[in-house]
Amino acid sequence: MAIVLGPNQYGKAQNHLVRVYRDTPRHEIRDLTVSSALRGDFAGAHIEGDQSDVLPTDTQKNTIFSFAKEKGIGAIEDFAVTLADHFLDRTPAADGARIEIDETPWQRIPVGGKGHDHSFVQTGVGTRTTVVNVDGRGGERRAHVVSGIKNLTVLKSTGSEFHGFLKDSYTTLPETDDRILATSLVARWRYDHTDVAWDESYESIRDLMLEQFAEIHSYALQQTLYGMGHAVLEKHPEVAEIRLSAPNKHHFLVDLSPFGVDNPHEVFYAADRPFGLIEASVLRDDASDPGSAWHAVPGWV
Amino acid sequence: MAIVLGPNQYGKAQNHLVRVYRDTPRHEIRDLTVSSALRGDFAGAHIEGDQSDVLPTDTQKNTIFSFAKEKGIGAIEDFAVTLADHFLDRTPAADGARIEIDETPWQRIPVGGKGHDHSFVQTGVGTRTTVVNVDGRGGERRAHVVSGIKNLTVLKSTGSEFHGFLKDSYTTLPETDDRILATSLVARWRYDHTDVAWDESYESIRDLMLEQFAEIHSYALQQTLYGMGHAVLEKHPEVAEIRLSAPNKHHFLVDLSPFGVDNPHEVFYAADRPFGLIEASVLRDDASDPGSAWHAVPGWV
Amino acid sequence: MAIVLGPNQYGKAQNHLVRVYRDTPRHEIRDLTVSSALRGDFAGAHIEGDQSDVLPTDTQKNTIFSFAKEKGIGAIEDFAVTLADHFLDRTPAADGARIEIDETPWQRIPVGGKGHDHSFVQTGVGTRTTVVNVDGRGGERRAHVVSGIKNLTVLKSTGSEFHGFLKDSYTTLPETDDRILATSLVARWRYDHTDVAWDESYESIRDLMLEQFAEIHSYALQQTLYGMGHAVLEKHPEVAEIRLSAPNKHHFLVDLSPFGVDNPHEVFYAADRPFGLIEASVLRDDASDPGSAWHAVPGWV
Amino acid sequence: MAIVLGPNQYGKAQNHLVRVYRDTPRHEIRDLTVSSALRGDFAGAHIEGDQSDVLPTDTQKNTIFSFAKEKGIGAIEDFAVTLADHFLDRTPAADGARIEIDETPWQRIPVGGKGHDHSFVQTGVGTRTTVVNVDGRGGERRAHVVSGIKNLTVLKSTGSEFHGFLKDSYTTLPETDDRILATSLVARWRYDHTDVAWDESYESIRDLMLEQFAEIHSYALQQTLYGMGHAVLEKHPEVAEIRLSAPNKHHFLVDLSPFGVDNPHEVFYAADRPFGLIEASVLRDDASDPGSAWHAVPGWV
Repeated sequence: MAIVLGPNQYGKAQNHLVRVYRDTPRHEIRDLTVSSALRGDFAGAHIEGDQSDVLPTDTQKNTIFSFAKEKGIGAIEDFAVTLADHFLDRTPAADGARIEIDETPWQRIPVGGKGHDHSFVQTGVGTRTTVVNVDGRGGERRAHVVSGIKNLTVLKSTGSEFHGFLKDSYTTLPETDDRILATSLVARWRYDHTDVAWDESYESIRDLMLEQFAEIHSYALQQTLYGMGHAVLEKHPEVAEIRLSAPNKHHFLVDLSPFGVDNPHEVFYAADRPFGLIEASVLRDDASDPGSAWHAVPGWV
Repeated sequence: MAIVLGPNQYGKAQNHLVRVYRDTPRHEIRDLTVSSALRGDFAGAHIEGDQSDVLPTDTQKNTIFSFAKEKGIGAIEDFAVTLADHFLDRTPAADGARIEIDETPWQRIPVGGKGHDHSFVQTGVGTRTTVVNVDGRGGERRAHVVSGIKNLTVLKSTGSEFHGFLKDSYTTLPETDDRILATSLVARWRYDHTDVAWDESYESIRDLMLEQFAEIHSYALQQTLYGMGHAVLEKHPEVAEIRLSAPNKHHFLVDLSPFGVDNPHEVFYAADRPFGLIEASVLRDDASDPGSAWHAVPGWV
Repeated sequence: MAIVLGPNQYGKAQNHLVRVYRDTPRHEIRDLTVSSALRGDFAGAHIEGDQSDVLPTDTQKNTIFSFAKEKGIGAIEDFAVTLADHFLDRTPAADGARIEIDETPWQRIPVGGKGHDHSFVQTGVGTRTTVVNVDGRGGERRAHVVSGIKNLTVLKSTGSEFHGFLKDSYTTLPETDDRILATSLVARWRYDHTDVAWDESYESIRDLMLEQFAEIHSYALQQTLYGMGHAVLEKHPEVAEIRLSAPNKHHFLVDLSPFGVDNPHEVFYAADRPFGLIEASVLRDDASDPGSAWHAVPGWV
Repeated sequence: MAIVLGPNQYGKAQNHLVRVYRDTPRHEIRDLTVSSALRGDFAGAHIEGDQSDVLPTDTQKNTIFSFAKEKGIGAIEDFAVTLADHFLDRTPAADGARIEIDETPWQRIPVGGKGHDHSFVQTGVGTRTTVVNVDGRGGERRAHVVSGIKNLTVLKSTGSEFHGFLKDSYTTLPETDDRILATSLVARWRYDHTDVAWDESYESIRDLMLEQFAEIHSYALQQTLYGMGHAVLEKHPEVAEIRLSAPNKHHFLVDLSPFGVDNPHEVFYAADRPFGLIEASVLRDDASDPGSAWHAVPGWV
């Protein structure tokens, strides 16, 4: 029996990078939070404190900022792949690299009916995200892209039922054919390959999920999530798999009868905790092997 | 010399209330966080633990939820005034009431090019807020309304300079004629009276402030704030005074020269802390007496 | 009628400074978050964008860090006064300065029964805080110190009643002679003068408030707060006034009767929102004039 | 090719439960945040909206609160196992259950030199946590316990070096033989079996990790983490594997030379973001098969 080093990774988390494109008076801005991590044979650093194989996290940070100028950014997926390959190239002891990028959305401030050239307001809703894992180099190289969206809070004021559930001696919940359904969605989808029109794919998936949430008459949050995921896979052949995580943000009908007031599904108390937490995945039965695609993706596995 | 009770208030904070209007299949929703507080002669409760003058915070909560149905909501300013007057009416020992309401914005989910009837997505940006203080009853009654906006994060990628400042032996900041200016604005304005078209006033002020932020060529965040406030007072006779609080969210130009890379105001590191904090007020020199209008308004006085 | 600049202030917020004292192998550390602000006649900066009277917030930051070495820190009250006087000295247009300091507590890591020389663990509870406002210079100078504590979460599992309260048509709360009383206390006390043994005073007040919370049989959170404040004023002649702000963190007895289980005040659901919010002040009837002591102190006024 | 449901789970998250033991006047309190989740064949709920196999999250919540009285709590590991087995027993379609419990620490308020009978102050530091995964029932049953600690912020003011690292064209970091090392540690260890004296094991591991952090002269955070994990495995045969996740909370030495002030490792700026993030695991080379032990454990895998 021996005590040994197991899996490990290290990197620089949450580099908050703002890139201005100012080639014309009509500027563009990109607001990214980038995290890098390298994994591989770093036993020297762990066991002997020998850093000779370690590309410091400070160097990773420098590279991220410099590449924003040298390479430009483009789709966050492309920027992440470029960084991952570079870090693997510079760090022989690494056998895998992970880059996570969140993009905060901004829009132009409207002035006189059109968007201003260089002034923006943050919308902050529906943060686009990607986690890229690259294993190996050259002929062995394999790149995985899991993109997604978070901070997307949605609510249906009707069109949601919940009944027919399993009952036991601890059941007190009444059945209902009309309730508020609300959640703050996190969705992450694994791309089957990397030859994807990333921006178009993201926007189409986001819009489709919103539409599905709106259109599905819900008998449970599980069913809504499955329906959203199913629709994404049906329409997007480039997506192999999707995982959805959704708190059931409870809205309790307030009992106003002590005050002689009727409350026909109109006044609700929005609770913070506890909340239901529903997690579901939808995939193709012939989906490609995920490999390390889900390595260290925040949330459940 | 004696030790005595000083100013005090008590209430129920952060009642998270969602109201659905469902008279037609095209629902409306309102998402409010309501806090109530009463002040006055509550010496009995403090000194002897005698609650006979105290309308419990639980009762305040019940009332807030019930009034959402009984009275409807309308503009948050009207809802707040209604609640304040009611609590004063029910609590003889109180001589003042304070109601604070934040409204979280939602919009309809677009489906097939138009907004869905009962499905919504939270935008979360630009939270509308009001703090209403009412003193007294009947002929003595005076109501004060301070409305505002928060969570409004804006950025200019150019059109901002900073130079000519006072220097001393601790000054290292270089002067600049081109920097990013970014802030997360909180603005609160005191209405001169309560005979106001609240919704129209709010929307106009919000849009005007955004436009001003975009249009003002800035020589300091102070000047931008003053310009925004001045424009609001010029256009809105119903506003007596406005207070703005704005962190200067620093975006530092990254030095890429060690890597042989030029960085002509393109790649920035967005820092969290420390941040500048600029607070300014603009008012009419003949503004009405504020009375208790700013009582317990979050932020600076 | 004219539109004019009103009160304003500006500074650098949340400078997170860690100071190591290492004159011997047994190090000491201090972990401060320091915010500075200057107020006065800064009309030029606001109206014309002229910074010639403005000591930049960057310079304020530099000074704060340098003074941690040049002057040492000592009690946070002394460090704040030193900074305030210095900023007024360097900024002729300012007529007042405000320094706020939070101190995060750390303790030595125990190794072999005693505290390690240079390794520490953060306790994070009971953050000590001060807000210092200084007006003027020379003969006109007046310094105000409001110190306090925050992040102090306390709970009584019994010894708390609530009954005899005012009832109206919206009252549903049952009276109780045994409930959990829990709060996360913020207390801020104004010192009558600045010739105080700051550290001893702070520790004594903190311990006394904890003892009072424990010992007072409570008939309302108001009465507990008043009792705590009264005890502080009785024992501490250097304190002119104390303000306490305390959320009533509700713990609801869970109804287990549907499951045939008795719950004699043993199992509680700890709710997040809404919460009661009780704010009280206790002062001497001959207390000195507060002047600007409470200027921009976080929380209520 | 077909689109199918993949892995899924559902439950009630963050039930905040406070349990008072009051059999004598000297009360004990336990403050738990409990999350439950069930996984298995819930295709009906997802695909057809049929809830007949679904034990509602509301029922799970009821059970958690009732069991706090019916079964008592004991060590959080035992309480979690009891809940997991119960939910599997009540939900035939489930093949696995996951219970996560965080315990917030409290201590008695000192009054007159000893701890008060029923008044407590929250320490909030070093939150104890467990994630229990149980698969199957009866002879097939297998229970996994991963316990841990979080919110443990530690700092060394010296005894930390960083040099000899890999350099490339993006390296600017100077080497150092004396720096501050600070982190907010999350550690999670997998128990080899469930016949453990949980409380003693937890306390011993916590104390040992703190001691190791203090005693190890660090050449990299990796080495410190490995050393901490190694020591735990050496002393605790009941632990099969430990995973540590630690942000490198950078403390930058402030350059005071522009002000003519020397700064021999005394004044530091504590930065928020970006931060290094170091994750390492240490295990026995003959460790038992983890099975589902790390299923949905927060953090990295």
